[in-house]
Amino acid sequence: MSETLYVRHGRLHYFVREVLKRLRVPAPQASKIGDALVAADLAGVEADGVRRLPYFASRLSTGLINPTASVQVTHQEEATATVEGDNGMGHVVAMRSMETAITMAKRFGVAAVSARNSNDFGMAGYYSRLALEEQMIGIAMSNGSPAMVPTYGKAPALGENPLSIAIPAGEDAPPFVLDMATTGTSRHQLEDAVRRREKIPLGMALDADGRATDDPARALEHMHLLPLGSRPETGSHKAFGLALAIDILSGVVSGSNNGPLMAQGSAGGRDVAGLGHFFIAIRLRAFGPWIKFRNSIKQMMELLTSAEADGAPRIYYPGEAEFEIDQERRASGIPIDAAAASELQGLSRRLDIHDSWKHVVEGRK
Amino acid sequence: MSETLYVRHGRLHYFVREVLKRLRVPAPQASKIGDALVAADLAGVEADGVRRLPYFASRLSTGLINPTASVQVTHQEEATATVEGDNGMGHVVAMRSMETAITMAKRFGVAAVSARNSNDFGMAGYYSRLALEEQMIGIAMSNGSPAMVPTYGKAPALGENPLSIAIPAGEDAPPFVLDMATTGTSRHQLEDAVRRREKIPLGMALDADGRATDDPARALEHMHLLPLGSRPETGSHKAFGLALAIDILSGVVSGSNNGPLMAQGSAGGRDVAGLGHFFIAIRLRAFGPWIKFRNSIKQMMELLTSAEADGAPRIYYPGEAEFEIDQERRASGIPIDAAAASELQGLSRRLDIHDSWKHVVEGRK
Repeated sequence: MSETLYVRHGRLHYFVREVLKRLRVPAPQASKIGDALVAADLAGVEADGVRRLPYFASRLSTGLINPTASVQVTHQEEATATVEGDNGMGHVVAMRSMETAITMAKRFGVAAVSARNSNDFGMAGYYSRLALEEQMIGIAMSNGSPAMVPTYGKAPALGENPLSIAIPAGEDAPPFVLDMATTGTSRHQLEDAVRRREKIPLGMALDADGRATDDPARALEHMHLLPLGSRPETGSHKAFGLALAIDILSGVVSGSNNGPLMAQGSAGGRDVAGLGHFFIAIRLRAFGPWIKFRNSIKQMMELLTSAEADGAPRIYYPGEAEFEIDQERRASGIPIDAAAASELQGLSRRLDIHDSWKHVVEGRK
Repeated sequence: MSETLYVRHGRLHYFVREVLKRLRVPAPQASKIGDALVAADLAGVEADGVRRLPYFASRLSTGLINPTASVQVTHQEEATATVEGDNGMGHVVAMRSMETAITMAKRFGVAAVSARNSNDFGMAGYYSRLALEEQMIGIAMSNGSPAMVPTYGKAPALGENPLSIAIPAGEDAPPFVLDMATTGTSRHQLEDAVRRREKIPLGMALDADGRATDDPARALEHMHLLPLGSRPETGSHKAFGLALAIDILSGVVSGSNNGPLMAQGSAGGRDVAGLGHFFIAIRLRAFGPWIKFRNSIKQMMELLTSAEADGAPRIYYPGEAEFEIDQERRASGIPIDAAAASELQGLSRRLDIHDSWKHVVEGRK
């Protein structure tokens, strides 16, 4: 298999479930994690998709992530709650948290949930989007293991610290889904650049000696990423500040690990991630009639996307491109390149569930 | 007077009040606006300070801003409210909104307030900071008149759309106050660069022909600013997306004007701003003991600011620099350069309250 496979997302979901169950993750949780990973692959965010499974499998099998975690709401006041992650898979913790926020926002109009002792939850936009069906705005954010070099800093002290804001758009229009790392580039984009054998722009990452690099492989090796904006003269302190706010909301408010502490710890071989997340749900009808909001956002997006463009066919709003990729991949399959396929096959062999991978391959389009 | 005056902030506040009262703004509101404008001058954000008074005076006297606006909470559910600005001064609308959010968050743990039919509220960080005394996190954002050229766009369609997040820090430490425009530069920084006769980096602004410019005066003239990140290859779509989310939360949710609509309207001579804002207050004690939060953020900031730095004495967190400037200006006075002094003097003459300006000048340090 040296070519890219195009596999059915349903079969990929089945594979994820089988892998996780083999690693003692209970079936309902395995299914939820499958939802989140496959959603990332469908949206074209492969770095947060099934390709991450060997990483999670390794941590689950060594106990660095708890496969049988008891994810629970430990403290709830009127419109706020804290979710204890019990060092479980971040996807499960995040889903439980966002669902809790949505439930509370139905009653109070807005709700905030802090999640602690969690792990990498993957694509932030998956959780913010959960609010859309309830005609709510969803906000999801997380801290992460050290990757961002602060403005005027020399070593990573914060994660990529993603922020996602999902907002319902017009009736037939793709939803607005902002899902941004606060770094200029991300592991996802670096892996993409390596696959495409492309260089990255200067101002995105540093090499081990603190010099700008345009080599995505070297950038991936060291993960010394710069904040969006690159340099202080061009505003990098803003994205650094935003990443820090996200780290406080995610890590400090929840009583989890925070970026600088992780950065310090990583030198000492600290290994359990202990991440935190933060979620907000905002019920749109608390602020006025739904129909008024929908007409207004429809008009806004039409004005925006019909304005004169330069360097692209038109202006796109966040979430449109991912929506198109999702539609296409549901029809034509999710591309799994030879390297990823080989890794997943290897994983299935190690876990002695080789038939599960065969099931994926046989179902290819 | 060709030199910079250093004036007492109390006297500057008195001057603002006198100007506004002369323009039919009721005394209590005039005092609140004075608080906000002088706070900006104290923080070193002159572009949102007293220097803006002639602009507001002109709009108040021509009726483009309503001096006797009735700013009211028009709709309140459990933890959400809508504030009607009645085309009043944005500072008054924003203060009323944030106070409403804080009151609701005391009971519900989190609260969100949408403000409509408002005007430029100046420094976003002034409102987010109001939450700090109550041991809350404050979030404030606003849309604005067209300034940002969207990624792949040719003309401005969104405002600078500031976002501020204020978070209590350690006991004796300056609070964390992120206050960022989503553009790479801002009117404030451009005016600063003009005063200092400095160029601006490329990638911040375009001239009228859509070409990159390093001339801050030309950039100010056209206000074609690029999103933080400058180009799509270096992540500008992220800040564009964030600005769009802020415009939806501020403009669309509240039923006010939104960026693309303002951009369309400006061609037709539309003049009332009709801006919207959005505010969130989050009570920290809803998520755990205050003392635990404070110890944790203190440790985080100590780790961060003691890490090795490059190009600066140390790493600063957002709000530290402004806090230092504030302390210094309270002691040594607020600098008013000759051009600004002449404008303010002219204003006092036009309004026939020349003594008020003399009172400021006589009190200089």
